[in-house]
Amino acid sequence: MNKPIKDLKPIRVEASPFPGSKKVYEPGVLFPDLRVPFREVALQKEANEPPVSLYDSTGPYTEEGFVPQIDKGLPRVREQFVLDRGDVEFIEGRKVKPEDNGNVSAERLAPEFPNLPKVMRGKPGHKVTQLEYARAGIITAEMEYIAIRENIRRKQEAEVIRDGEDFGASIPDFITPEFVRDEVARGRAVIPANINHAEVEPMIIGRNFLVKINANIGNSAVTSSMEEEVDKMVWAIRWGADNVMDLSTGRNIHNIREWILRNSPNPIGTVPIYQALEKVNGVAEDLTWEVYRDTLIEQAQQGVDYFTIHAGVRLAYVHLTANRVTGIVSRGGSIMAKWCLAHHKENFLYTHFEEICDIMREYDVTFSLGDGLRPGSIADANDRAQFAELETLGELTKVAWAKGCQVMIEGPGHVPMHKIKANMDKQLATCGEAPFYTLGPLTTDIAPGYDHITSGIGAAMIGWFGTAMLCYVTPKEHLGLPDRNDVKTGVITYKIAAHAADLAKGHPAARAWDDALSRARFDFRWEDQFNLGLDPDTARAFHDETLPKEAHKTA
Amino acid sequence: MNKPIKDLKPIRVEASPFPGSKKVYEPGVLFPDLRVPFREVALQKEANEPPVSLYDSTGPYTEEGFVPQIDKGLPRVREQFVLDRGDVEFIEGRKVKPEDNGNVSAERLAPEFPNLPKVMRGKPGHKVTQLEYARAGIITAEMEYIAIRENIRRKQEAEVIRDGEDFGASIPDFITPEFVRDEVARGRAVIPANINHAEVEPMIIGRNFLVKINANIGNSAVTSSMEEEVDKMVWAIRWGADNVMDLSTGRNIHNIREWILRNSPNPIGTVPIYQALEKVNGVAEDLTWEVYRDTLIEQAQQGVDYFTIHAGVRLAYVHLTANRVTGIVSRGGSIMAKWCLAHHKENFLYTHFEEICDIMREYDVTFSLGDGLRPGSIADANDRAQFAELETLGELTKVAWAKGCQVMIEGPGHVPMHKIKANMDKQLATCGEAPFYTLGPLTTDIAPGYDHITSGIGAAMIGWFGTAMLCYVTPKEHLGLPDRNDVKTGVITYKIAAHAADLAKGHPAARAWDDALSRARFDFRWEDQFNLGLDPDTARAFHDETLPKEAHKTA
Repeated sequence: MNKPIKDLKPIRVEASPFPGSKKVYEPGVLFPDLRVPFREVALQKEANEPPVSLYDSTGPYTEEGFVPQIDKGLPRVREQFVLDRGDVEFIEGRKVKPEDNGNVSAERLAPEFPNLPKVMRGKPGHKVTQLEYARAGIITAEMEYIAIRENIRRKQEAEVIRDGEDFGASIPDFITPEFVRDEVARGRAVIPANINHAEVEPMIIGRNFLVKINANIGNSAVTSSMEEEVDKMVWAIRWGADNVMDLSTGRNIHNIREWILRNSPNPIGTVPIYQALEKVNGVAEDLTWEVYRDTLIEQAQQGVDYFTIHAGVRLAYVHLTANRVTGIVSRGGSIMAKWCLAHHKENFLYTHFEEICDIMREYDVTFSLGDGLRPGSIADANDRAQFAELETLGELTKVAWAKGCQVMIEGPGHVPMHKIKANMDKQLATCGEAPFYTLGPLTTDIAPGYDHITSGIGAAMIGWFGTAMLCYVTPKEHLGLPDRNDVKTGVITYKIAAHAADLAKGHPAARAWDDALSRARFDFRWEDQFNLGLDPDTARAFHDETLPKEAHKTA
Repeated sequence: MNKPIKDLKPIRVEASPFPGSKKVYEPGVLFPDLRVPFREVALQKEANEPPVSLYDSTGPYTEEGFVPQIDKGLPRVREQFVLDRGDVEFIEGRKVKPEDNGNVSAERLAPEFPNLPKVMRGKPGHKVTQLEYARAGIITAEMEYIAIRENIRRKQEAEVIRDGEDFGASIPDFITPEFVRDEVARGRAVIPANINHAEVEPMIIGRNFLVKINANIGNSAVTSSMEEEVDKMVWAIRWGADNVMDLSTGRNIHNIREWILRNSPNPIGTVPIYQALEKVNGVAEDLTWEVYRDTLIEQAQQGVDYFTIHAGVRLAYVHLTANRVTGIVSRGGSIMAKWCLAHHKENFLYTHFEEICDIMREYDVTFSLGDGLRPGSIADANDRAQFAELETLGELTKVAWAKGCQVMIEGPGHVPMHKIKANMDKQLATCGEAPFYTLGPLTTDIAPGYDHITSGIGAAMIGWFGTAMLCYVTPKEHLGLPDRNDVKTGVITYKIAAHAADLAKGHPAARAWDDALSRARFDFRWEDQFNLGLDPDTARAFHDETLPKEAHKTA
């Protein structure tokens, strides 16, 4: 039924080292086979400084000489660690059904990924999630990997200058594997790493770690193809996306997602209700628990690392949005609200929440509890609907934790600056310090075309206040689907916000980067300024526009 | 000596109304001849809403049918109000000297503006500055103009919902001319309006008014021409620059400035030491009080509305920068530090400060006391050098006020988020609430090419905390001179920051704009979303990229 793979056009993704940089790897101590990546930037001779190491979430695509083989997928570096724990088994796995790809005709079907891995699942009664291991006092390979990664090659014995205001966070001078374990055990951090996403380079999301960012990609009924989405994913992580969400809503969702997962070194999140809705032809009222459940299993077995689940959109809250300026703007939120009202029943994601936990636990899929009632405008920020849902998310967090599942909480949205901190404080109080993962927030509604900026302001602030991951907003927000340039602009803007937050929190690994670049700037070491920058290509191009001569770079 | 004006190529500047908008004017009550401009955006019929009025700082260039005549200059709408006060006289004025234009040869000389106005100066012993009028209890035409402007056509009797955190500001529900007068009299606000800049549409800079933004333009020894600078000025104000600083440093400084002033409806600021330095061939050590004094008079008589004066860079503070990562990065600061060290003498701007006041008072040039020791990197933020200078600026503020001069204070620079509020608090405490005018601040140093964003974050925050005007940073910061696109990006970014600050402060005139756009968004009124946006052209273009059909705009 699939298009023969030989007809597949070669898929191009950007793969090249960053200028002046090389990729280096550090081994583990508990797990000597670990290869934890860093970007090492060599400086000009006259700097008389050692190379600068940066956190690197770009995967093998920035390795010297790496040739992507998209139809083979990335090396499954994590698989052996998962198998070594002895808690998983290979299973047959759910068979792909025509509805998984929107019943699309053979000619229009995206090709199936030709190199499908075997599906793993936790053995009954065994630990499978990072949370369960952490609680049992076990330091996993993923945890040691993350500890090494978060220190960015600083030495434990090196002097640490702490300068910041962290609003009650507990960032240590040095990250040890034991600290990672402890934070995961407390639920204060999550490691999104489905056992079936063995290509993942582990990363952590938590208030006491570096602030992370997420980029959304995904096709729609109107535009885009598998090739474009894989390219966008690689492009997003090249510029710094720690996580990528595939928000596809058109056809071919299953097949496109497989290609993304097999080629992504970073965790992939989804909103399963989007695919479930496609399976019932877009009619929210026709959604059922059975269709949704089947979709969860489908995606969990493919290796999706976290699911946005709008289980907090309770029937009783829907009327709270009636007098809003912008009602319900979350797509998942409005789907569930429609379902609740049509059936006059409680949200089935809420009523079946324990069963959802049981599925997600078997594959270690992390919860991202969705904020379906988030404000869609400055006018609606911090209202009763939003906070009622947040309280329910706090209640569900405890349920998921009791089931051994990892949890993070999604946050708004559109919030003026003076109301941002209240969001963070309420989330911390309500959700037991489970990591907060926010979209922006946008701090004004007057600038369509520039919402990466309206929201970058809010993102930097909420990151400072304690949000663990910032979901990017691109210039196309509210206007259309982001293209490659928009993805890059969104990612760079959010890397800025995340790093500004790390600096303000006083994260001990943050400031070395700024200082190295500032010294280069003061010494007019242009090459170092470019190479140390978040986006060396743009910095160089801008410089060369007015001062194109080589002499100007060394003057 | 000048190129004959007939050889002048026609100068093109952008002049057209905003889409869906028309320019409307309101008269005064005390001064019925006032014509206070607003941008009125008509909404789609189905909105069933009255048009939305927006603050409009774009000058006549956005009037329907306006044809710019750059070699004639704008109408001198303010002249009669100045003359009616009876406190000024026409004088001969200083003659232009070859050194004013860098002794440039005839062929390379920028043409002289062909329609020079007569120079005005305050009569000896008479009030001339807005501060002096305010103190005397006089409401000037400028003050009533500003009161009308700041209310954005809200009615005094309309209900006001206050929602914000203003950190001790005193923003009233409705701005009266008397409130404007009182704020100016206290020194808490300034009206930059040189009596010789009669083309100015008056505006106010103060913590209890809408947050304003400044755009920098200017040629350099390497690039740019008069035509380009006039075009950039008009372009900057089109997108929302309330003020423009001409930071030209090459030749032809005098002539280019004349063209800018005669065609700018918005206040123009300069850094006179830049031109003074050109007059001594770029050798800082050769600067003298006499050259500087002559430059102040030259520029004051042309109509420059405010001068950045780095009088706080005292000899004793220079060594405080010795251990900085980025030393002294302010151009004016480093010029003065060099002079101080070369002569081992106190800064002549400090020792001659009272004489400077006497000159500026005669034309009502506002002080912008420069922060020559501002930090140039995250590492140097809030250090002793920076704050020592700020204390001196506080001392000088009192001197200038005693002389009847208006004063604002410049601020940093590069400051991580957790250190921003300390800047605002210290400025308020040290400088008697004189308006703060900050560059950014940049909240991280890792993103050359994106410093509009690194700084837009800091600008929004410091604007919220109480900064009255935000000086933009463009994507080319640290890399090269901004072109037209960079100017627009910088201005839009800073309009976002300023408006986000207004919202967070709870300015009663701010939120109507967001709410109107949010309603349009919720109703899928695409035309209204575009037209209400800060940048309708970009919003429309982005929308049309993915959904180009007309039908999609009304769906």
